[in-house]
Amino acid sequence: MNSLSEIACFLESRDKYVILTHIYPDGDTLGSAFALCRALRKLNKQARVLINGTLAEKFSYLATNMEEQNFEYETVVSVDIASPELLGAFKDEFESKIDVCIDHHASNSMSAKMIYVNSEAASNCENIYRLIKQLETQIDPLMANCIYTGVCTDTGCFKFTNVTPDTMRIAAELMELGCKSAEINKAMFDTKSFARINIEREVLNTLSFYEENKIAVVYTTLEMEKRSGAKDSDMDGLAALPRQIEGVCIGITVKEKGENYFRISVRTNDGHDAAWICSKFGGGGHFAAAGCSINGQLDEVIKQIVNVSIEELNR
Amino acid sequence: MNSLSEIACFLESRDKYVILTHIYPDGDTLGSAFALCRALRKLNKQARVLINGTLAEKFSYLATNMEEQNFEYETVVSVDIASPELLGAFKDEFESKIDVCIDHHASNSMSAKMIYVNSEAASNCENIYRLIKQLETQIDPLMANCIYTGVCTDTGCFKFTNVTPDTMRIAAELMELGCKSAEINKAMFDTKSFARINIEREVLNTLSFYEENKIAVVYTTLEMEKRSGAKDSDMDGLAALPRQIEGVCIGITVKEKGENYFRISVRTNDGHDAAWICSKFGGGGHFAAAGCSINGQLDEVIKQIVNVSIEELNR
Repeated sequence: MNSLSEIACFLESRDKYVILTHIYPDGDTLGSAFALCRALRKLNKQARVLINGTLAEKFSYLATNMEEQNFEYETVVSVDIASPELLGAFKDEFESKIDVCIDHHASNSMSAKMIYVNSEAASNCENIYRLIKQLETQIDPLMANCIYTGVCTDTGCFKFTNVTPDTMRIAAELMELGCKSAEINKAMFDTKSFARINIEREVLNTLSFYEENKIAVVYTTLEMEKRSGAKDSDMDGLAALPRQIEGVCIGITVKEKGENYFRISVRTNDGHDAAWICSKFGGGGHFAAAGCSINGQLDEVIKQIVNVSIEELNR
Repeated sequence: MNSLSEIACFLESRDKYVILTHIYPDGDTLGSAFALCRALRKLNKQARVLINGTLAEKFSYLATNMEEQNFEYETVVSVDIASPELLGAFKDEFESKIDVCIDHHASNSMSAKMIYVNSEAASNCENIYRLIKQLETQIDPLMANCIYTGVCTDTGCFKFTNVTPDTMRIAAELMELGCKSAEINKAMFDTKSFARINIEREVLNTLSFYEENKIAVVYTTLEMEKRSGAKDSDMDGLAALPRQIEGVCIGITVKEKGENYFRISVRTNDGHDAAWICSKFGGGGHFAAAGCSINGQLDEVIKQIVNVSIEELNR
């Protein structure tokens, strides 16, 4: 593992950056990437973010005032990417070419010339904040917006157990540096499309319980998404729903992504290990929030993930 | 208006405190009161909190390890109480006897010997935090829990526009002082009873829109509460729902409290004045979050509050 100052020195010595984000890009990988890209450009480097999928409308402000730069890349940085699988379509081209990996997942299994993994950081954007502080540049308001986005989204707006006093103080400083924290909070946590309201209503109707209500499961199907008009971005955070119910230890959200193909989100309370559950299906994540994919029919998929969850309950 | 240090001196010079909370007691009035009560007791004063109604189960931790104290009161403090009406059942006995009023509502209209109103504070608990810092005592973990409760509940867990860098830094320090922030966040913002899930589903079905979807209204009836098994504490925060919908400027929640008697919550976006709307019905509050009561039949009450909201939209 390298120190942030080693990485800062390295970044200042190189040029022509591509910054990789993970599949199903969230506020933390995108915020990390755009903040770092802006910082590198302020150092007169060429840099661009490679978005792993599409940039959801609600994250479009991260790219404000960033003109396109076309160049042949020389330096590859991955941000918030815990494992090669999360490189998705970038895996073949980039897996063996990563110069710098900056992450906050304890389970990080990436190969890179330089690695900085700080799992004490609630969001990878906390790491990026500290890294940019070591670079010969200042955090400007647009950078602050990017960093704040990861800080707030990965903590459920400062709600989760991963929040530390440092998290709060970094947010305070980002506010002073001009980030539009309240606007970002509202866009991330307090704005629901009509489609979202519809899909929430549908999801509540799928709620089922196992093991004396200690496990709660909801699901969405492609049909439900179509009926409600929900796009991917309307589905964000639905995974938080089953764990919120009083007494639930393991909350599971099963999302149909294609024919016989489901994406699973597991959220846990009270010391149960979501990452362990998801690892049984080749997935991973954090202790209290993890994900995996399972092939099969809906009822079979639910049975499989519930069975492993029962195992975890009894471990 | 008095300074906090004047109030600190006064509090240290007196004894036998009752601390008044407002009707429909929320996390901020309760957190303020219990924190101050604990601080006064550490100064070897006698002090008790007068709860204006019942202490909801989810707030019961605020009173942890506080044995009852019976004494004839000599000093009266009101916390987070913006107007005499909010004294509710305490009004007759206490309205003219308040020694110290500590509040954060710009609209404060209380009479008291000493008054400190700081409307820059996102929560009154920020004021209480600063006040206790001026007293000859330390903030212990149980006090920190109380203060944190107001800080997080009045900001929607650091989400609303009232959050300042100070809010974040106070929260950081409270975490270091031993408050159980993550547990409190979870209890306040991430725990839904079965009844709550049921009432949410019902409330979503009452959603109606006015003025090209700029005004959204939901309602609850006593019948709905009964059917879902929802108690008052299960209804907390429902008022946030209509404003969350994309494009909504004024979100209104109408709650049946008795026969032909409704409690209204108004939440606004984009510069619309909720307090102005509610003032037309004898209520008040903050710019973006206010409340009032209206007598009448449900559809009439909705018509009245919507009409004034249309006026506000066009002001």
